[in-house]
Amino acid sequence: MPESGREAEYQQSKLPVSRRVSDLLERMTLEEKAGQLVGTWAGTMHRELDVDDVKDLIREKHLGCAAPFGWGGSAGTEVGEIVDIVNELQEVATEETRLGIPLFLNVDAVHGHAYVADATVFPNGLGAAATWNPDAIEEGASITATEIAATGAHQNYSPTCDVGRDPRWGRVFETFGESPRLVAEMAAAKVRGYQGDGLEAEDTVVSTAKHFPAYSEPERGEDAAPVDVSEYKLRNTFVPPFEAALDAGVESVMPCYNSINGEPVHGSARWLTDLLRGDLGFDGTIVSDWGGVRHLTDDHKTAADLREATYDARTAGLDVASVGNDLEAEELVDLVESGDLAESVLDASVERVLERKFRMGLFEDPYVDKREALDTVGAADHQQSALEVVRDSLTLCKNDDFLPLSGDEDVFVGGPNADNLVHQVGGWSVESEEHVDGTTILEEIRAHVDGDVTHEQGAGLHETIDVEAAAEQAADADVAVLALGEGWYLHEFGAGGPRTETGEFPTREQIDIPEAQQELVDAVAETGTPVVGVLVTGRPLAVERLDEQAEAVLMAYFPGTMGGKAVAETLVGENDPSGRLPITVPRSGTQVDVHHDHLHQPRPIGDSEHPDSYDPLYPFGHGLTYTEFETDQPVVAEEVLGPGDTAEVSVAVENVGDRAGTEIVQVYSRTESKTLVMPERRLQAFERVDLDAGEEATVSVNVPVEQLGVYAPGDGHRVEPGHYDLVVGDEAVTIRVEGDYV
Amino acid sequence: MPESGREAEYQQSKLPVSRRVSDLLERMTLEEKAGQLVGTWAGTMHRELDVDDVKDLIREKHLGCAAPFGWGGSAGTEVGEIVDIVNELQEVATEETRLGIPLFLNVDAVHGHAYVADATVFPNGLGAAATWNPDAIEEGASITATEIAATGAHQNYSPTCDVGRDPRWGRVFETFGESPRLVAEMAAAKVRGYQGDGLEAEDTVVSTAKHFPAYSEPERGEDAAPVDVSEYKLRNTFVPPFEAALDAGVESVMPCYNSINGEPVHGSARWLTDLLRGDLGFDGTIVSDWGGVRHLTDDHKTAADLREATYDARTAGLDVASVGNDLEAEELVDLVESGDLAESVLDASVERVLERKFRMGLFEDPYVDKREALDTVGAADHQQSALEVVRDSLTLCKNDDFLPLSGDEDVFVGGPNADNLVHQVGGWSVESEEHVDGTTILEEIRAHVDGDVTHEQGAGLHETIDVEAAAEQAADADVAVLALGEGWYLHEFGAGGPRTETGEFPTREQIDIPEAQQELVDAVAETGTPVVGVLVTGRPLAVERLDEQAEAVLMAYFPGTMGGKAVAETLVGENDPSGRLPITVPRSGTQVDVHHDHLHQPRPIGDSEHPDSYDPLYPFGHGLTYTEFETDQPVVAEEVLGPGDTAEVSVAVENVGDRAGTEIVQVYSRTESKTLVMPERRLQAFERVDLDAGEEATVSVNVPVEQLGVYAPGDGHRVEPGHYDLVVGDEAVTIRVEGDYV
Repeated sequence: MPESGREAEYQQSKLPVSRRVSDLLERMTLEEKAGQLVGTWAGTMHRELDVDDVKDLIREKHLGCAAPFGWGGSAGTEVGEIVDIVNELQEVATEETRLGIPLFLNVDAVHGHAYVADATVFPNGLGAAATWNPDAIEEGASITATEIAATGAHQNYSPTCDVGRDPRWGRVFETFGESPRLVAEMAAAKVRGYQGDGLEAEDTVVSTAKHFPAYSEPERGEDAAPVDVSEYKLRNTFVPPFEAALDAGVESVMPCYNSINGEPVHGSARWLTDLLRGDLGFDGTIVSDWGGVRHLTDDHKTAADLREATYDARTAGLDVASVGNDLEAEELVDLVESGDLAESVLDASVERVLERKFRMGLFEDPYVDKREALDTVGAADHQQSALEVVRDSLTLCKNDDFLPLSGDEDVFVGGPNADNLVHQVGGWSVESEEHVDGTTILEEIRAHVDGDVTHEQGAGLHETIDVEAAAEQAADADVAVLALGEGWYLHEFGAGGPRTETGEFPTREQIDIPEAQQELVDAVAETGTPVVGVLVTGRPLAVERLDEQAEAVLMAYFPGTMGGKAVAETLVGENDPSGRLPITVPRSGTQVDVHHDHLHQPRPIGDSEHPDSYDPLYPFGHGLTYTEFETDQPVVAEEVLGPGDTAEVSVAVENVGDRAGTEIVQVYSRTESKTLVMPERRLQAFERVDLDAGEEATVSVNVPVEQLGVYAPGDGHRVEPGHYDLVVGDEAVTIRVEGDYV
Repeated sequence: MPESGREAEYQQSKLPVSRRVSDLLERMTLEEKAGQLVGTWAGTMHRELDVDDVKDLIREKHLGCAAPFGWGGSAGTEVGEIVDIVNELQEVATEETRLGIPLFLNVDAVHGHAYVADATVFPNGLGAAATWNPDAIEEGASITATEIAATGAHQNYSPTCDVGRDPRWGRVFETFGESPRLVAEMAAAKVRGYQGDGLEAEDTVVSTAKHFPAYSEPERGEDAAPVDVSEYKLRNTFVPPFEAALDAGVESVMPCYNSINGEPVHGSARWLTDLLRGDLGFDGTIVSDWGGVRHLTDDHKTAADLREATYDARTAGLDVASVGNDLEAEELVDLVESGDLAESVLDASVERVLERKFRMGLFEDPYVDKREALDTVGAADHQQSALEVVRDSLTLCKNDDFLPLSGDEDVFVGGPNADNLVHQVGGWSVESEEHVDGTTILEEIRAHVDGDVTHEQGAGLHETIDVEAAAEQAADADVAVLALGEGWYLHEFGAGGPRTETGEFPTREQIDIPEAQQELVDAVAETGTPVVGVLVTGRPLAVERLDEQAEAVLMAYFPGTMGGKAVAETLVGENDPSGRLPITVPRSGTQVDVHHDHLHQPRPIGDSEHPDSYDPLYPFGHGLTYTEFETDQPVVAEEVLGPGDTAEVSVAVENVGDRAGTEIVQVYSRTESKTLVMPERRLQAFERVDLDAGEEATVSVNVPVEQLGVYAPGDGHRVEPGHYDLVVGDEAVTIRVEGDYV
């Protein structure tokens, strides 16, 4: 029997966690410490590792963290198989190592536990944000945590706190859009959902705010390309969602792959220690994005070799190298033995790692139950919750009084995304249809329409498929629903996983609808049959031509397993579309950097003829409903406010149409500043309100005065005294902030 | 007689300038001081002022600076008329004011004195840079200074030191391209050309480095939109050309219109005082870009009114408000009288302004001679010099062994830029063909080809004009030369000046060839007649389709008055194309941020399938010739170098073709750094070499070690010890930099 039995005293201990941690740390060898600070994987990454390899790494290299499932190339997909792997690995960790320290398992479950077969798959980031419903997102995250915990993992590499500013970027679909405020609310909701009442409670997982501090506006829109950003923009645009996640108690933070202003974040004390731990006061674990440490030497070329990269990352503030493996563990040992790195640096990280394991009860019981896991993953009430999120997310961008359908029409259905569950779940999900427990748009239109439903794909993502046949069938129908857009992709790469050929998405050349799909639209539109475009897509596509051709355009994002049902319900009016765009839809791919909260600026010559700086196809916050709302001028409880106060903004909203529907009240601030140029407007608060036909309600939202300020480099966050307009629709109320304070 | 007679003692004085300045300053009233620090215009700006208005402003408001000609909406265009205006205004200033201080006149003569009728018009910025020939550019600037001085102006708002990084930006044509090094060399050459042996010498003008410090990468590519930039990029990409201009002794600097990192530069002590005067040690005059002060209140909204804007600009470091007029003069007086602004702030600026006037001899003689001006402007030897610059600038982007023509071919000529002098000179030039003393491409092809030359425009910039007729004529020809591209524009706006309707250029939506022009290309290409595309354009256009259709593509930029002749000479081989692209030509408008010196970066997943981060249509530095060169591996005199050393790089170049031609040896550096991510490569030095067929030469260029370093925020400029590759073509030599120094 291994020495691990000796842990029994701790396992049963009623001592405080801090005591258990320090007692254990004291008895660890340098190699055992190093092992706790690197993770490994089972599956296909830059090299292939199987579960037996992981067992060897645990036994021989003392590795304390692993990802054998729950991500793209991982070893396990089916729940039964996963549970077996987990229990085997935990047995090795607790029974076959000297100290019996249980393994800590992490997953990439960013929109549901979506790399596991038949799991509940929620809409991806943009779709989630389109609900403007943090409560629903929190509930979804809580469900995801339950499914993760049931399969034996402990940390989720979610939420994405990146503010999505560039539609060319292949990961924009993972973001909650362009507004720091909306992203902050959504990210905080996810943290609360994952971590519940704390790691000591059941069905919770460690949440990971990523990718700190500014991943999402890389040069050329190219994933992991350099980010160049001023402190002004960094602190006012990119950091606020991380601050919100920290306020919500997030236990872990992941740096971004990029270099920022010339410093690779994984090796930068400026970003990880000075900013994150210092200014922002974070004291949880900092975990690397997969290969982030290796990139320092292989890619950024700021480290001569892996040893230097390891040194740079550790002195920068990294706790856990997610896929550091034996190689980085050995470098850590060597760095300490050679005197180049103080052992205390390792100790601090080991304490953080062990503290988690104790708090989550892993020393008491690291195992999971197969029956329970099978019952939990993709449970009916979970799927129902996902359906409700999708219903709230669908965003009606255009409607020429055409939708909803009566349900009696003969409907032609075409396009690459009408009958494809893999496209529907999108990236960060299983890639095999058999593993997705959902229904397609086509299937659900058949279920929701009484008229004839015909189908001809007409086009794949990038090639036409008998367009003539599609047009012929469309000609005979009353309406043609074309489900267009993008397919499954991850980072910069196309369906089929990282080792297969990339498609046209998500590379930077293209943000229009691909030619083949546009040909299908052209052919169908030519028949005279009214067209409804449904966009299943990870990014805002520049669909100006479709907008001209179609009677209605419905943005579905990557809606997940329940997407087909919610889309069909919406088309026939069983669901009222209530999503609002969380990101601007540009007119063309050339129109990047277009967002609602751009700064005031001069127009040197010819003001009158200049197109508005914000002149997109569909603006941020846009979304139609099947009814109509009238919004009064907002009023505030107090017009003069001081530091620490909160503006209580009320606005009367009336549903003046003849159907029930949902309005989302959006409050923007508008102001001027004596020193720093301010945004022309920026989102401050929002609230969903469901109203029956003819119903009126007064919606109240709070805007803390603090939130009206900005971070001024050198001065910190401050609110300038003066006037602030709070704008709802075309109406505004002005408040005065008094005092002379930061 | 006015009191100005009292200046006689100073006018004749042999006292040092500083003494003359202080004596005069002592006798000035507050109003007179204020007047020296604001300028005015005659012509159409935000309001109309005529020459009599300017006289009144001089008499009544003591204004000391004016721009009655030499820019877009100015009152005078013909040389005779200009000289009269100048002499009248100087008479008022010297004879009808109390102190008789002569007027200081400024112009926008950015590529020749091109707002004056029949002046010598050189290629605009990109074309000038394409020569990679600083000596020629210096000579051109010297000629421009001679023409400016002959018409009585004293300061030229040139050179543009902005580094052109965004092809969407409407002013990219004014830049010397994307490489900080190339821009620096060209900007310094222009400063030397304008300022000659110093302001005391004949035929020199004050040069103005603009637009400090980072105008050229505005959000959305929109002119004057906010710039967000880190100190790392600011100091390594945008500031170096300003440093080169300062090293070359530039006497004036103009701030940019933008806000940078939230601070409008015209009101920012950070940029104008701390950076420019402090870090960079500039002690000349800081002059506003036209309305830069007014923008602070009207546009950036950091100032409540013009008074605050004036205060902000003056405390930031501004000396002269170019179009401040009586309004800003009055605000200045009021600010001092109320005690809000110290009079010493004004005094320091007045000293700088007066010092210029004394040094340039204006107190001795502010008048100009009409006969001499008429002889000087557009003199034959000036035009010949311009022709030589254009010859060096033309850049052959593609050639399927087709050019040069024999001259015996029947040639069809079409396209909107074949016979249009206004398009040929481009922005910052007169807009009326009758004022341009040059020849068109069509005229010169007729003069240089013995075969039949037919012409049908076929397309304007944005509309087709009987494409069928053009195609028919093209079908009968041996070759079709299509002169395509852009027209005259300024800032964001189209031909016809700031008050007329904008065309499709230069707004941000479009960087392809406009549809109408592409239709012409399609129709002509369809006839089977080989197509030669000549691009008259201010920006790199995304011409991937033309590149596929044409046998040859010649980039002409905005070539100026002699452009027609140089293009024709090049087509028939009387001139060998020797220009090289100073800016990357992208594949599409979505492909922005694409430049040769991007930083090293990771490619998180799927490295092998990822397109190269630098994968443009035509790369920076590209340009074909009619012959062929072979370049050996470069060698260095010393392989180990220390601080202060210079790497002497030699490379043997042989003309292995059968014609004479010009190679441009381009030396790039490539390195890695322990702390900051470095560019994959960046231009360090270059040299033109003319070689006859079969001739070989060894070209030597110097790369100062200091130039291999970067500005590290917090540390300043530093060179890391280590290895540096110096790359010429595909070959490199490695040097080692020793020492452990900043």
